[in-house]
Amino acid sequence: MRITTVGLDADDTLWHNEGIFRLTQARFLELMAEHAEGPVLEAKLREVEKRNLRLYGYGVKGFTLSMIETAMELTDNNAPGRLIAELLAAGREMLSHPVEPLPGVEQALAELEGYRLVLITKGDLLHQEQKLAASGLGDLFAAVEIVSEKDASTYERVFARHGTGAAQAVMCGNSMRSDILPALEAGAYAAHVPYPLIWEHEMADAPQGHPRFAELGSITELPPWVRSLS
Amino acid sequence: MRITTVGLDADDTLWHNEGIFRLTQARFLELMAEHAEGPVLEAKLREVEKRNLRLYGYGVKGFTLSMIETAMELTDNNAPGRLIAELLAAGREMLSHPVEPLPGVEQALAELEGYRLVLITKGDLLHQEQKLAASGLGDLFAAVEIVSEKDASTYERVFARHGTGAAQAVMCGNSMRSDILPALEAGAYAAHVPYPLIWEHEMADAPQGHPRFAELGSITELPPWVRSLS
Repeated sequence: MRITTVGLDADDTLWHNEGIFRLTQARFLELMAEHAEGPVLEAKLREVEKRNLRLYGYGVKGFTLSMIETAMELTDNNAPGRLIAELLAAGREMLSHPVEPLPGVEQALAELEGYRLVLITKGDLLHQEQKLAASGLGDLFAAVEIVSEKDASTYERVFARHGTGAAQAVMCGNSMRSDILPALEAGAYAAHVPYPLIWEHEMADAPQGHPRFAELGSITELPPWVRSLS
Repeated sequence: MRITTVGLDADDTLWHNEGIFRLTQARFLELMAEHAEGPVLEAKLREVEKRNLRLYGYGVKGFTLSMIETAMELTDNNAPGRLIAELLAAGREMLSHPVEPLPGVEQALAELEGYRLVLITKGDLLHQEQKLAASGLGDLFAAVEIVSEKDASTYERVFARHGTGAAQAVMCGNSMRSDILPALEAGAYAAHVPYPLIWEHEMADAPQGHPRFAELGSITELPPWVRSLS
């Protein structure tokens, strides 16, 4: 059998994530409306997030800190206390947001029985563990890897550790930048399942005519594609 | 050989950590001096940290958010913006604080050559990876496990994955609660190396007369103790 292992991204592949960030960001824009115009706010938040990524990494806690920092910078340190308290509360709500598998996910994972399923995700360690537990999908995975960055060496290491190497693995996710391109670079197959929203940071062009790449319409197409490789 | 694997805690075992939290906390107390007395502040911060631990987990980002939340609560949402900006800066400084191995660490790890060394630590994923890289100790470890909680099942899983099981492993760290008691419960040996400061959350009594436990004066005593078990 050519394929032994299937890696799956979590956020926006198995469950909603970016939508929750967008909702919080919309609330932030509303709360800050009297201090700055929407586009100025969005640009500033992106700038602060990008600057802090190196220190905070991915996830809700860093995003919350970056929202507060943006508020301080745009108000010359005069953001109202009520606003800061609201941002803290928004962050806590994101961390305790209910998690439900996206349509078709449970069915697709069930059909992949027989392959070693590995969850490979970025973000806050505890939060990702909690989301997996809340999703009810935990038992379907042979291994879970929460990583600080997804590059080719990440996929090489993870598929070597939990499978039979990248050459016999498929990676499936919604981010070209984090799930598809580095997995292909590591020698794995990669299936892109788009999600309607994508964080600007995760955008990248699709690979053109790559022999180990598939663009799928939905995660329900993953099991037949994986089987077709075997 | 009875022992194959040595697990090591990171913060306050390999490098300073609690001292950096204490310095930041002292700065927080100073910044908040006009709003509340020291003991009130400390008690409130502990309460907020404890309440948030379930959502934030361990690490600097959660601590920073908890300091800001404490400031808001103690000022009835009227904390001055300058103070919030200072707390954000303090958090970023903690995340970029230089990391130096504690005295004796490099020597001790070098003397443990031949055993599989596994770093087992809690905290923010990216920050712990960065501290390990900055410490220069990364190459000495066969594996690194950054975990959201250290309980008996954590040690069972980690020593099974990276060694030959807990029964042939030693865990070494400064926290009775996180490093020693759960490792003993998992069936491993455990060596306590005290650090002058300890976070209240990590306090626990030493095991009494446990056959697999040693209280060491310093990490330099770890290699001879491990060898004595083999």
